[in-house]
Amino acid sequence: MDRDALATEAGNILGALRAQHPLVQMITNLVSMDVAANVLLAAGASPAMVHAPEESPEFVRKAAALVINTGTLSAPAAQAMDVATSAARTHGVPWVLDPVGAGGTTFRNTTVAGLLRRRPAVIRGNASEIMAVARLAGLTDQSAAPRGVDTVHDTSEVEAVAQKLARHCLCIVAATGAVDIITDGRAILRLANGSPLMTRVTALGCGLTGLIGATLGTGVDAFAATRSALTIYAIAGDLAAERADAPGSFRVAFIDALYQINPQDISSRLRLG
Amino acid sequence: MDRDALATEAGNILGALRAQHPLVQMITNLVSMDVAANVLLAAGASPAMVHAPEESPEFVRKAAALVINTGTLSAPAAQAMDVATSAARTHGVPWVLDPVGAGGTTFRNTTVAGLLRRRPAVIRGNASEIMAVARLAGLTDQSAAPRGVDTVHDTSEVEAVAQKLARHCLCIVAATGAVDIITDGRAILRLANGSPLMTRVTALGCGLTGLIGATLGTGVDAFAATRSALTIYAIAGDLAAERADAPGSFRVAFIDALYQINPQDISSRLRLG
Amino acid sequence: MDRDALATEAGNILGALRAQHPLVQMITNLVSMDVAANVLLAAGASPAMVHAPEESPEFVRKAAALVINTGTLSAPAAQAMDVATSAARTHGVPWVLDPVGAGGTTFRNTTVAGLLRRRPAVIRGNASEIMAVARLAGLTDQSAAPRGVDTVHDTSEVEAVAQKLARHCLCIVAATGAVDIITDGRAILRLANGSPLMTRVTALGCGLTGLIGATLGTGVDAFAATRSALTIYAIAGDLAAERADAPGSFRVAFIDALYQINPQDISSRLRLG
Repeated sequence: MDRDALATEAGNILGALRAQHPLVQMITNLVSMDVAANVLLAAGASPAMVHAPEESPEFVRKAAALVINTGTLSAPAAQAMDVATSAARTHGVPWVLDPVGAGGTTFRNTTVAGLLRRRPAVIRGNASEIMAVARLAGLTDQSAAPRGVDTVHDTSEVEAVAQKLARHCLCIVAATGAVDIITDGRAILRLANGSPLMTRVTALGCGLTGLIGATLGTGVDAFAATRSALTIYAIAGDLAAERADAPGSFRVAFIDALYQINPQDISSRLRLG
Repeated sequence: MDRDALATEAGNILGALRAQHPLVQMITNLVSMDVAANVLLAAGASPAMVHAPEESPEFVRKAAALVINTGTLSAPAAQAMDVATSAARTHGVPWVLDPVGAGGTTFRNTTVAGLLRRRPAVIRGNASEIMAVARLAGLTDQSAAPRGVDTVHDTSEVEAVAQKLARHCLCIVAATGAVDIITDGRAILRLANGSPLMTRVTALGCGLTGLIGATLGTGVDAFAATRSALTIYAIAGDLAAERADAPGSFRVAFIDALYQINPQDISSRLRLG
Repeated sequence: MDRDALATEAGNILGALRAQHPLVQMITNLVSMDVAANVLLAAGASPAMVHAPEESPEFVRKAAALVINTGTLSAPAAQAMDVATSAARTHGVPWVLDPVGAGGTTFRNTTVAGLLRRRPAVIRGNASEIMAVARLAGLTDQSAAPRGVDTVHDTSEVEAVAQKLARHCLCIVAATGAVDIITDGRAILRLANGSPLMTRVTALGCGLTGLIGATLGTGVDAFAATRSALTIYAIAGDLAAERADAPGSFRVAFIDALYQINPQDISSRLRLG
């Protein structure tokens, strides 16, 4: 896909998002509660943090998309993820997996391995997490034990593994970093926008996964949804970095940018890697 | 109540809040943890998020008011709400209900129906939530099934239902939206201040319910507490909207405004609907 | 320790923090999730909120330090604190206790008393909390029943008790307030920097305890880690107070200041009490 086609597509999906306000159910980590909800509201979506096992499966039928994030995992959250993703499949609601901390502990690995069987439409993580998920899927015997929730692999290392994972799961895989990569198992797209300050604000990755849920909730296919969400997000990062040079004010400027970004910003700024 | 009397009352209650720093216990949703605590601190109150069933009833005796919010509901939270509201009644601590997502799932409905029997002093929600609560109370057979946590009814539709609910529960009911309405079952007050950006920042509604707890904690009656909190909040929204035009910076300006607002701001800006 | 030596030490530890990005595991309260993670990221550390009993002990082996905070306590959190601090001791990972709300309820007291037996390297609280911890340790029969999570004692009152507690627990004790005090049971250091606005932003105390974990994670001794973290934090507060005069914008400026502060800021601004 060429640069201009991608920019046009992302601009169109941004318009759809703002017109439709898709309802996105999130079972997300507790650190990301505030910023992920604000990312979705600023971008035009309607977030609903509904994460109890008692109500998650009932609620998901109404959602346009479901987002699952394994940060700050707990036993009740894992149970909710299990029943919500099961209901999502039954009701045809697409869902996105953010395997935060995959590879970090046995509990995360077991939970993520179970979720893979629920067929996510998209998996988004940093390079280490994508490597760890591939290992859990039996696709690599490389040791991929991230130190914590930070990435320790360079994005370029992860491309082949991401493609394998996408083919194995029949889904879209996005590994974000200095250059973001997105693949459906065949094509690979590389996005070079974004600011290093995005890694100095907590849970912006979780917010991005939320935004993938929002674009997916507009009804487009998972590859289009993922590349558009990553494009919009990274360019909002560029806009914010022009207004702020430290993480407190950057976060504020970034939320503002998600609210203000328009198709012209995208077409003038998009850079492929 | 006329405009000037309302403005004077709100200014006086704001002064009492800042002088007394009432201790407000909140069992609130996880999305609102940060912003609701900051709203209360900025306004002058002393928030305490104490939500374990093991300690909520013991703590509530010391609180000037208790605030219950059913967003991101969980079984332990529902249990804590049950024992805390029971203890609040025993010890004469007034409490406020924010029925987030009422009508959305069976679990929320069951929990909210149980809480209604604990006699809240105030119920505050958006129009959809107030409609759903009225339905749970058996006051209407209208279908009121909100899509998520967003409002789908216009505030004007909900006035008659809010009055019925207030009479039924012997409490104050506030339905907030473009125009806020507040009723004790007889009188209706309509407030026209506030900014649409308030709906683009997550959990500002939850923060408002917290502020009702704070004004209630100054010892005034529930109607005065509710109309003053809504007045202060909406005018802080006006002040913030003069300084910020996107949700990230609006949130910052709004917290600043709650800290800086004074009785003159209220008397010069208050607009009834 | 004289002013210049302290400033030099804090500058050096700040440099080490930014060079090493120590991984700090936090089992912290839900109100502080966002701001504490952002404090650590801005200062240069790598926070990981990992708090399930199922994975906390496994994860802690990889951490440079562990931070335990008893705000918004729950039974699963208390269990996670128990197994994580036990594992931290086994694996030689230093840990810091923030006894939020100690003295407030039986549940908090029981939990804090259990944690004291796990030998924290540092205890940081406000004056009321330090008084309450000392009472739980059997060191004083003074009634120290704080109203909520706010301090009701003046910092100066607590010095003798803090020294006793430090000797009893063989740890560093810091009681923060208008003047912060830090003691190893013999020496007492008093820091006079900081802004009253720091008490109007929720969970900044929790963020400070997180920063103590981060400085401790650089490998320095607990006294040096504590005094440096408090120095850096309070001077960041001074810097922020020069740019913002209300809590919303102060919070933003404070996170920015933690990212931007340099050894020269410290040496030119440090004031002992």
